[in-house]
Amino acid sequence: MKYKTEKITVRYSETDQMQFVHHSNYLKYFELARLEWLTSMGVSYAEMEQQGILMPVVSASLAYKTPLYYGDEFEVIVMLKNLPKATLEFEYVIVNQKDEVICKGSTVLAFLSPNTKRPLRCPKFLLEKFS
Amino acid sequence: MKYKTEKITVRYSETDQMQFVHHSNYLKYFELARLEWLTSMGVSYAEMEQQGILMPVVSASLAYKTPLYYGDEFEVIVMLKNLPKATLEFEYVIVNQKDEVICKGSTVLAFLSPNTKRPLRCPKFLLEKFS
Amino acid sequence: MKYKTEKITVRYSETDQMQFVHHSNYLKYFELARLEWLTSMGVSYAEMEQQGILMPVVSASLAYKTPLYYGDEFEVIVMLKNLPKATLEFEYVIVNQKDEVICKGSTVLAFLSPNTKRPLRCPKFLLEKFS
Amino acid sequence: MKYKTEKITVRYSETDQMQFVHHSNYLKYFELARLEWLTSMGVSYAEMEQQGILMPVVSASLAYKTPLYYGDEFEVIVMLKNLPKATLEFEYVIVNQKDEVICKGSTVLAFLSPNTKRPLRCPKFLLEKFS
Repeated sequence: MKYKTEKITVRYSETDQMQFVHHSNYLKYFELARLEWLTSMGVSYAEMEQQGILMPVVSASLAYKTPLYYGDEFEVIVMLKNLPKATLEFEYVIVNQKDEVICKGSTVLAFLSPNTKRPLRCPKFLLEKFS
Repeated sequence: MKYKTEKITVRYSETDQMQFVHHSNYLKYFELARLEWLTSMGVSYAEMEQQGILMPVVSASLAYKTPLYYGDEFEVIVMLKNLPKATLEFEYVIVNQKDEVICKGSTVLAFLSPNTKRPLRCPKFLLEKFS
Repeated sequence: MKYKTEKITVRYSETDQMQFVHHSNYLKYFELARLEWLTSMGVSYAEMEQQGILMPVVSASLAYKTPLYYGDEFEVIVMLKNLPKATLEFEYVIVNQKDEVICKGSTVLAFLSPNTKRPLRCPKFLLEKFS
Repeated sequence: MKYKTEKITVRYSETDQMQFVHHSNYLKYFELARLEWLTSMGVSYAEMEQQGILMPVVSASLAYKTPLYYGDEFEVIVMLKNLPKATLEFEYVIVNQKDEVICKGSTVLAFLSPNTKRPLRCPKFLLEKFS
């Protein structure tokens, strides 16, 4: 189970005074990739939220290999690590236009009811998409 | 009607590769100032939202005079331009630790129902706070 | 003189708890549009900076018409208001996938030397591109 | 070796439509804490950069325990894990106004020359501050 995003261009506003992309943005790129993947499978996360299923990040790790600069083009490859149960674990690799590995990482997501603030099981339709 | 924020230190993540604060952050500083002002008058914007009153920005203008750098300390002075009716107009001046004017601006805010997506009048308790 | 960006999808991280895109992001969208325009004309802003020409925003105005939501697709239309002299004035319209006008705005940009921190004239090659 | 930041108030612009702070902001809070710590020891990171020493993040991990909401006040406790050599490892705990643990994490930072893009040793004055 694997997905690769469209090419994404680094925005000027994503840089900091170190002259490259601020390290917090990679978590946004990871998020963008896993949601684009859901969309590509016909799952609308916006609708999931309206039906009372939030997917907050419960943990994350990142290894920064080499910087991204303003104007660089990159892709995010996202993989599902195991069949979803109470949580979903994704792994990510960000690669730039020269095929250099920029960043590797992983995130664990849970399912949460916005009203009760309690964990939910992975919804069936999502389980089916991923199997 | 006027309020001055606590001293705020520029965060590293707010800079861009031009070596100073990205110009979009000033809208966040303006927001922070007007909400801190409400808090100081005993108005919780968080509670206003829970009671069904959103205050979106409907227009904004900014004049950037001189940059803010990482580590700079600044204050935001916020003023109410006229007694609130359908909209609230705030004016802002950002001043750094050397008393230099960094940015001047204004924002107009409306009152909105999150359910009907329709404009509301300024709530009475807010009118009273500002008169 | 006019340019329209590729379709851009609203990122989840660009929303706030009001459930739509935080108003500060529109300044980032404007920036993205004018830099994409430069790129499409064969002008690399990254190189301009390396050659000692910064283009900071000196003023901006925005009128927010209707919100952008997570997952919406939008385009930014950017126009040059007059032939560049000491400053460049751009106007912007953001339009969503239903052809609704989301936001209109304008920004004035100056040319600045990063070493002397003094204003520069608009570089010749840029003048030629825009005439 | 341990440091606790001043109380920091969650900004509205830091929330997302899930109604709490976007998970990428915690990396900004960690950064803010370690730089405030350096400042409190008389070390200016801004000056370090001017003297040609960048401190990029090379890896990070985060465990999100419970959300931060708009208006919440939090503190970041930052600890140095071992005496700096080629890299500096910091650990972090974010605690809200009710003394709830919000997030735990760690970051490893390297020392980098902006010109050669090569790693540097930890500068002596920094080693001394931390011993």
